[in-house]
Amino acid sequence: MSDKKTRLRFGLPKGSLQEATIEKMAKAGFNIQVSSRSYAPYVDDDDLEIRLIRAQEISRYVELGYLDCGITGYDWIQENNSRVHEVGEFLFSKSTRQPARWVLAVPESSKIRSARDLQGKRIATEVVNLTKRYLRKHGVKAEVEFSWGATEFKAHELVDAIVELTETGSSLRANKLRIVDTLLTSTPRLIANHQAWKDKWKRGKLEQLSLLLKGALEAEAKVGLKMNIEEKKLLKLLQSLPALRKPTVSNLSQTGWVAVETIIDEHVVRELIPDLKAAGAEGIIEYPLNKVVY
Amino acid sequence: MSDKKTRLRFGLPKGSLQEATIEKMAKAGFNIQVSSRSYAPYVDDDDLEIRLIRAQEISRYVELGYLDCGITGYDWIQENNSRVHEVGEFLFSKSTRQPARWVLAVPESSKIRSARDLQGKRIATEVVNLTKRYLRKHGVKAEVEFSWGATEFKAHELVDAIVELTETGSSLRANKLRIVDTLLTSTPRLIANHQAWKDKWKRGKLEQLSLLLKGALEAEAKVGLKMNIEEKKLLKLLQSLPALRKPTVSNLSQTGWVAVETIIDEHVVRELIPDLKAAGAEGIIEYPLNKVVY
Amino acid sequence: MSDKKTRLRFGLPKGSLQEATIEKMAKAGFNIQVSSRSYAPYVDDDDLEIRLIRAQEISRYVELGYLDCGITGYDWIQENNSRVHEVGEFLFSKSTRQPARWVLAVPESSKIRSARDLQGKRIATEVVNLTKRYLRKHGVKAEVEFSWGATEFKAHELVDAIVELTETGSSLRANKLRIVDTLLTSTPRLIANHQAWKDKWKRGKLEQLSLLLKGALEAEAKVGLKMNIEEKKLLKLLQSLPALRKPTVSNLSQTGWVAVETIIDEHVVRELIPDLKAAGAEGIIEYPLNKVVY
Amino acid sequence: MSDKKTRLRFGLPKGSLQEATIEKMAKAGFNIQVSSRSYAPYVDDDDLEIRLIRAQEISRYVELGYLDCGITGYDWIQENNSRVHEVGEFLFSKSTRQPARWVLAVPESSKIRSARDLQGKRIATEVVNLTKRYLRKHGVKAEVEFSWGATEFKAHELVDAIVELTETGSSLRANKLRIVDTLLTSTPRLIANHQAWKDKWKRGKLEQLSLLLKGALEAEAKVGLKMNIEEKKLLKLLQSLPALRKPTVSNLSQTGWVAVETIIDEHVVRELIPDLKAAGAEGIIEYPLNKVVY
Amino acid sequence: MSDKKTRLRFGLPKGSLQEATIEKMAKAGFNIQVSSRSYAPYVDDDDLEIRLIRAQEISRYVELGYLDCGITGYDWIQENNSRVHEVGEFLFSKSTRQPARWVLAVPESSKIRSARDLQGKRIATEVVNLTKRYLRKHGVKAEVEFSWGATEFKAHELVDAIVELTETGSSLRANKLRIVDTLLTSTPRLIANHQAWKDKWKRGKLEQLSLLLKGALEAEAKVGLKMNIEEKKLLKLLQSLPALRKPTVSNLSQTGWVAVETIIDEHVVRELIPDLKAAGAEGIIEYPLNKVVY
Amino acid sequence: MSDKKTRLRFGLPKGSLQEATIEKMAKAGFNIQVSSRSYAPYVDDDDLEIRLIRAQEISRYVELGYLDCGITGYDWIQENNSRVHEVGEFLFSKSTRQPARWVLAVPESSKIRSARDLQGKRIATEVVNLTKRYLRKHGVKAEVEFSWGATEFKAHELVDAIVELTETGSSLRANKLRIVDTLLTSTPRLIANHQAWKDKWKRGKLEQLSLLLKGALEAEAKVGLKMNIEEKKLLKLLQSLPALRKPTVSNLSQTGWVAVETIIDEHVVRELIPDLKAAGAEGIIEYPLNKVVY
Repeated sequence: MSDKKTRLRFGLPKGSLQEATIEKMAKAGFNIQVSSRSYAPYVDDDDLEIRLIRAQEISRYVELGYLDCGITGYDWIQENNSRVHEVGEFLFSKSTRQPARWVLAVPESSKIRSARDLQGKRIATEVVNLTKRYLRKHGVKAEVEFSWGATEFKAHELVDAIVELTETGSSLRANKLRIVDTLLTSTPRLIANHQAWKDKWKRGKLEQLSLLLKGALEAEAKVGLKMNIEEKKLLKLLQSLPALRKPTVSNLSQTGWVAVETIIDEHVVRELIPDLKAAGAEGIIEYPLNKVVY
Repeated sequence: MSDKKTRLRFGLPKGSLQEATIEKMAKAGFNIQVSSRSYAPYVDDDDLEIRLIRAQEISRYVELGYLDCGITGYDWIQENNSRVHEVGEFLFSKSTRQPARWVLAVPESSKIRSARDLQGKRIATEVVNLTKRYLRKHGVKAEVEFSWGATEFKAHELVDAIVELTETGSSLRANKLRIVDTLLTSTPRLIANHQAWKDKWKRGKLEQLSLLLKGALEAEAKVGLKMNIEEKKLLKLLQSLPALRKPTVSNLSQTGWVAVETIIDEHVVRELIPDLKAAGAEGIIEYPLNKVVY
Repeated sequence: MSDKKTRLRFGLPKGSLQEATIEKMAKAGFNIQVSSRSYAPYVDDDDLEIRLIRAQEISRYVELGYLDCGITGYDWIQENNSRVHEVGEFLFSKSTRQPARWVLAVPESSKIRSARDLQGKRIATEVVNLTKRYLRKHGVKAEVEFSWGATEFKAHELVDAIVELTETGSSLRANKLRIVDTLLTSTPRLIANHQAWKDKWKRGKLEQLSLLLKGALEAEAKVGLKMNIEEKKLLKLLQSLPALRKPTVSNLSQTGWVAVETIIDEHVVRELIPDLKAAGAEGIIEYPLNKVVY
Repeated sequence: MSDKKTRLRFGLPKGSLQEATIEKMAKAGFNIQVSSRSYAPYVDDDDLEIRLIRAQEISRYVELGYLDCGITGYDWIQENNSRVHEVGEFLFSKSTRQPARWVLAVPESSKIRSARDLQGKRIATEVVNLTKRYLRKHGVKAEVEFSWGATEFKAHELVDAIVELTETGSSLRANKLRIVDTLLTSTPRLIANHQAWKDKWKRGKLEQLSLLLKGALEAEAKVGLKMNIEEKKLLKLLQSLPALRKPTVSNLSQTGWVAVETIIDEHVVRELIPDLKAAGAEGIIEYPLNKVVY
Repeated sequence: MSDKKTRLRFGLPKGSLQEATIEKMAKAGFNIQVSSRSYAPYVDDDDLEIRLIRAQEISRYVELGYLDCGITGYDWIQENNSRVHEVGEFLFSKSTRQPARWVLAVPESSKIRSARDLQGKRIATEVVNLTKRYLRKHGVKAEVEFSWGATEFKAHELVDAIVELTETGSSLRANKLRIVDTLLTSTPRLIANHQAWKDKWKRGKLEQLSLLLKGALEAEAKVGLKMNIEEKKLLKLLQSLPALRKPTVSNLSQTGWVAVETIIDEHVVRELIPDLKAAGAEGIIEYPLNKVVY
Repeated sequence: MSDKKTRLRFGLPKGSLQEATIEKMAKAGFNIQVSSRSYAPYVDDDDLEIRLIRAQEISRYVELGYLDCGITGYDWIQENNSRVHEVGEFLFSKSTRQPARWVLAVPESSKIRSARDLQGKRIATEVVNLTKRYLRKHGVKAEVEFSWGATEFKAHELVDAIVELTETGSSLRANKLRIVDTLLTSTPRLIANHQAWKDKWKRGKLEQLSLLLKGALEAEAKVGLKMNIEEKKLLKLLQSLPALRKPTVSNLSQTGWVAVETIIDEHVVRELIPDLKAAGAEGIIEYPLNKVVY
């Protein structure tokens, strides 16, 4: 690991996002093995050197050049005000299909209804800079304090408002908190150090990584759909179902029948299948995908 | 979650079946997120409101209308004697391919050989009503007591017989118990409240749910099978292998060759593949399916 | 389980390899359910009787005929010097794509640089026979002691060298050990008792098992790749990309376009996709496979 | 385990109370080892045969004579209406020092304020008989249904009220429920079959068990307290601190000083120590006890 | 919990110190029950209201008066520069008997040997203020960045030095780091808001808490020691063993013999017992203590 | 840890006995902290260097001098035929109060009734040497094979008999095995290298360790018992209760009353307390001990 070979130093988020990120990397074709005794996990690609670092810090070390690149959230790039090159944007949260949002939240019974009501108040948050920027934008003066955790509970006793991360808002609701405003919507990004991005080999490698990660992530929310239909019904099927854009139509040996195959958003399928049956499709199957590259 | 939108109140089994059911729902296209702090999990479909309730109780609350519908076992619908509309039947247990059965079991050395030998005996079971009905059917009088658990051990010391759930019978065998009779074979059902079923919107939603769940569950036990074969060998292949019913045959660009594709029970594949090779099939691949809708 | 039906008694490795092996068996089409109260797990094939036994011992009991067959590593067949019939060889470790190796390792600062430097030294290992054979081959005399575990730590204090199993070498590196030599490279094997192999029914069953396990394992490291391309660009695509050997090319209903489909090593895909796009391929998708049988 | 020796068949609660009960038995001097493969745990007293049975069922099997005796809650003896001999009463919950209570609870905003408001309502509970008896006592007619769990959540949606177990009430409060009334206060009891109680040997053994369990449980909530004081200050100390009832006063070799030692409720100590210091006590120590028998 | 009773609002550290702190509180006589659904745990003292808050934040909220008091480390009081009243100091870490220290550490091979070598370097730490103060004291300019975790690994690649918490130094050693200097030695403190401290009732309660916690913690590192000895050997025993300071000597009924009893540091016992035997002590016993109040 | 200070290198058993051993060491006064990243745990005594090694190997490395001393079972000292100095013997298993035994076991229905019936049979065991010695002693020839685990199951299918470790025999019974004979009864021993034992400093340290460990282990099975009694009843109490040997009797300030205190086996207490009450003892308390040194 100490020879002279050029490698791309790649920071992945340690902690709560770690498992998901490693799984995405595996879908992209890069198998990573984390050992409890090392911060430098094994990856089955000699061109990469993986480092596990807290998501909050990755953009900082990419900016400084200690890492060539990394995956981290848009929120932390903004919070750290890091000057880095953004190579690609991904959407990790397949299950909720809701973007991660940093929101201003207050107790249900609070009188705070908008940013302006924060004047002179105390706000707890993990993203102090984002929150201060938000207050400046609204011309409001308030005290912002760094919160080490359990922020949701503080809104009831220790501070007037919090700025907290949420997807579906259900945790905030369960804590009897009301969302007042959204400060930032965040998605994972592949970022690169500006110097590294100018290096031809590194840029090539980064573009490959970005293409494959996108292909793998795209595939998570999509499925393959295949069905047989009489050729004479095909046109009507395609016209009435714009969701089936650009299907692959192949002839079957059975005269007058064709096979239609397409790639489609998984959550669209649940609306579509009844309509497909009604339009005369038979033998409809849905199958999983590893990667989709247009 | 408290606005006026009409939603389908959907009861899913809490506890031992919970994880499996949520996984099936995901395969059907509905992603559910359970929070430890709420009984109303998040689902990525605005039309649904999920409630997690013990499988034993779901049919009761569907019958009463507190829930519009739910998934529960046929056994508990019968045990509760619930008047509900059955929308669909599913087969969850892919791995054993054995139906869940409530069986009458006794110690290996017991003299009880049939229902008639139960006269005057004591039976422990979780399904008291089913057991009493069984005894009535056989004209036998015996004491039936509700068992809170560890029923298998009771058969050796505390009662004369038990009525217990089993799939493969291996747990009963390991406890040195002998199966005397089967009282009921049970599969999961999608049930609806009779009133809800009459509501057009709810019925439509229920039919969609049923179709997609069936498609997803069907797909669990099936796989896609693809192979290439010379056209002249095709007829013989299809004739000798009735398992390959209704395959999709498409022409390949290589003259004289066709691609054959079909959907088939996974456990049939293990018998079939040697025969396919013998019949001249090449490049046989088996791939997983998400949904199968005929 | 005690009737007279002929069955194949099949030993699977208990312990660290157990979960992986059961997963591979499921992919091959044989679902196994392990109960904590029984050493004879349920399998959904009446022809098989599964036994879970330590990998170190399987070859011994196959040789003696207590088992008809089993899956175990080449290393333990050699260590036990077992005379068994090898039915098939598999490669389990998909993630590292590195063979498992028994290596001679010493502290980084040790003066031992080759087998010859072991003269008069003390070596700890779990594979005493393999190590003694290795020493004999090199004409070296050294003391070899059986090690019950934590072997890596012993090299620093209790012995001069160790012979230990590794895939990527990263655990050895983390323990500040240096690999001196490789004694044996090992892969899992399906082995049969010589007598059982002569039995026609058992041999047939074994060949089926071997074919399906191979198909399943092959499929783990491979994926299906599909894309559309203009017919006129096809030849160039195929010529410039030998990795796409023997693709299935089918006509699309859109004139002048064909669909190209192939099975390919997963780790090749990450290099290939950029090139495919450059060659004019569109709608590239990668999908997972259950089995691949050539 | 099958010889003719007379033994006392002793039922201990399986499940949530199991660990606590086994710990109490150990404190009483009887070490029990539960094996995952047996319902008959090992105990280091040849006179006992332990059976682990759900707390809900123990009184039933003691009444029927399948068990000679058992430890279970007063609530389940009442719910089952079991005729058994009560040998002793214990107080397990050291930490909250609150009795376990079955309470009638309703949503905070419910109009139900007393038993009388239950007329015509629906109540979910695990103790159906206790609840029906309570309703009869208040001359109220209401539907009572058996609840398999998650009862607290039902009060908000599926029923009008619940009867649920609580110690501190904090779980009910966290679920936004209000306690309306207490139906029963319950403590663990050592119970015996009436026939077994008449047997001299069994009765002797039961009395020993009861004495030792009481001694052990008494000791959990008590501590030893020791201090030195000048003899002349002793009387005033004892008079002003009635909590120090019946202390052991022994002479020290240092003239004019005595050692005072007593057994005292642990939670009293926290109020007492400042006063002891004020009264001139020195070298106060508190030490733990295994058993206290007056 | 919301009535008008005056209570002491008491912040306890959430997270890694939580379990230990709750255990100490129990030893002091205050039983706390944490529920997963509430930040306000139950405590069996009506005078207290417990809040679980990260150790890093407690001093801040005590200073602001949101909490009356709390237990937190001296390090975080200093890092936050909080003006609070210190009621008592405790020593939690019984097992290592080493104070917790924030140390400056560098890779073993680093050229940094003292604070002065930090000029122009980059330091990662969780205690940014403490570190900046340290640098100012030494007249050194260096960049200090907040570290979210895994700080030890950063010293090798991302920064020049770290300031990290340690007790025995063994984790630093295992990471090949060298300790250069100690910035701060920290122990847990009971702190109070200045306003609360002026309130007579609160101050009384705080003094009681402090006394009992001290008594309980003192007792953790101490044991009771008892032995019998001939009276004539007593003087020599006491003279030669100053560790036995202020023992309680009581007359035994056996003429010429006395019992000697004392409280002593547990780790001294291991040196002392051989000497006691040599001096003629018999029947030496060591017993555990709950509290020790001098 | 690498300075020149002389230390005692002390091997403790890694694995299933590890936790128990570390707990005993703590009771003896030596606090050990195991880190997942190091085989050399921290101990709060500068004189010791701890190594965690499998129990099976400790005697070997003590014999060779790589360790000065260690704690391991008598069984493994015998199996390895190690020449070491035995410093002390302990009895760890407090709960069952049964010695650990290596027993010859066969299926319940086996015809093997004694050692002689083993002629020509196959035996599986982890203690190959002990078993061979046992066979030689009985003049029996049989094949002995090393078993890596799950030995109990092998007796039913793969071998004719096993030699396995047991305390209560309940696991063997649960596996339907019958004990034929006991080969060896084993207890933990503190052993030393012969050379180390000759070193004065090491021997002194070893004797201290042995004394304290014995004191701590003795204390596990013993308790302190204290009671008050009228002086005139004392003699009779002592005479009729020989278990109360050598009690400490001290005068109470209340004329005519004495306090009796003694150390006694815990399991005797359960028989004794009823008798003590009958003899007039009052205020009987039992308290735990850390160490007992006669």
